[in-house]
Amino acid sequence: MKVVIIGAGNVANHLGLQLSYIKSVSIVQIMSKTVLSAKLLADKIDCCYSNNLNELKEADLYLLCVGDDKIKEIANHKKLAKRTLVHTSGSTSIEVLQSNTDNYGVIYPLQTFNKDRDINFSSIPIFIEASSKEVLKKLKFLAANISTNIYEIKSKQRLILHIAAVFANNFTNHLFHITNEILSEENIKFDVLLPLLQQTFENAKTNSPQKNQTGPAVRNDIKTIEKHISILGQSNPEYAEIYNVLTKSIQKQKT
Amino acid sequence: MKVVIIGAGNVANHLGLQLSYIKSVSIVQIMSKTVLSAKLLADKIDCCYSNNLNELKEADLYLLCVGDDKIKEIANHKKLAKRTLVHTSGSTSIEVLQSNTDNYGVIYPLQTFNKDRDINFSSIPIFIEASSKEVLKKLKFLAANISTNIYEIKSKQRLILHIAAVFANNFTNHLFHITNEILSEENIKFDVLLPLLQQTFENAKTNSPQKNQTGPAVRNDIKTIEKHISILGQSNPEYAEIYNVLTKSIQKQKT
Repeated sequence: MKVVIIGAGNVANHLGLQLSYIKSVSIVQIMSKTVLSAKLLADKIDCCYSNNLNELKEADLYLLCVGDDKIKEIANHKKLAKRTLVHTSGSTSIEVLQSNTDNYGVIYPLQTFNKDRDINFSSIPIFIEASSKEVLKKLKFLAANISTNIYEIKSKQRLILHIAAVFANNFTNHLFHITNEILSEENIKFDVLLPLLQQTFENAKTNSPQKNQTGPAVRNDIKTIEKHISILGQSNPEYAEIYNVLTKSIQKQKT
Repeated sequence: MKVVIIGAGNVANHLGLQLSYIKSVSIVQIMSKTVLSAKLLADKIDCCYSNNLNELKEADLYLLCVGDDKIKEIANHKKLAKRTLVHTSGSTSIEVLQSNTDNYGVIYPLQTFNKDRDINFSSIPIFIEASSKEVLKKLKFLAANISTNIYEIKSKQRLILHIAAVFANNFTNHLFHITNEILSEENIKFDVLLPLLQQTFENAKTNSPQKNQTGPAVRNDIKTIEKHISILGQSNPEYAEIYNVLTKSIQKQKT
């Protein structure tokens, strides 16, 4: 199966590299408006690259790993008419691909990707959706060769999964950032929290998050909550607001 | 060293049990207003229990594992005059113990405790503070026998640590709860997010949280952000507000 990858960002780098390891798959081209990014990924995979959509090579599948707002525009390019088009976006409906072809689909790996960090793909859940049995077969083949967790879902569910992932990763990571900022003002290293983070993660694996909750909010310890908000408010009112909003939400959940 | 434990909640259960394993320490009594909780912990440790402060036994150290708002009242009880008093609270100043004795201190284990879940204490950071060298020596001895991570810090820093722990554990756990709620509406199991949570935690160990950030907020992907807030707003305006507040905070951090 010949595949062209459009895009050369975090997802293109990780997913593209994984696909290139499949024996019967040949990545024939990396297409990216940023020619340097295209070259860097093409060098890793040992294939061609270009930054001009008019130079698109022939392929059995075109994998669009581009920003959500670029998918439709690229899918409608004349060179992609009647091709098999697949995007990788959590929050974009499959229908965005339908105006230029009958063969389209989605392959969405649920993970946080960073170009500079290796990822073990084998346990990453991969969500697929397709316009036809033929496309579904191709996507199942690709997904099954890079992971053991494959799910067929609709666009609405994929959107919910993406929202859930924003809470579970982006927002969680931002809480870690805030923690880091608060501690660094007192010259305390973030590392001191790692055993707590480890336990937080272990708890999530073995119990419902609601049952795992501890701390001043769920205890309704008003004096401690007020003390914390007052301290945060002195140096960082934004963090005090976040503290307040999340505390109220925990207390609401309790009742 | 004879120790009386006042309180029989999550911290008393975990810290009390750990201290009871130290050869030269003898837990002589569990004191709790809830006599059943006192009995349950006393049975685990094999010691006396009571719910009446007037029945307090003689000891070298009285460990107050009670709610923050109860510490001062208990410390001022006539039976505790001139005793060595130690509390275990993150957000309570050491000075709350000073009116009834000259010998007082704090031993604060930074972890989320649940009575029903075993904890490996050996890597938990323990923060100590004392009114005198004698008390400090006692606390160092106790801490060194249950963990390898011991830090001597002041009350102000401990308060900041507690605030950081609220963000890193309580709020993170609440984000997991929200995630769980969102997914269950679509009959998707929380387990599907575990590889993402694992990576989120791995990233926190090896890089600064700011560098780890991905997703629509840091990409300034306005259309996706609006789509997410709109979907959340339909079924749960509270979650939409949390999404909005955290997204704005991530975007502010970027600039």
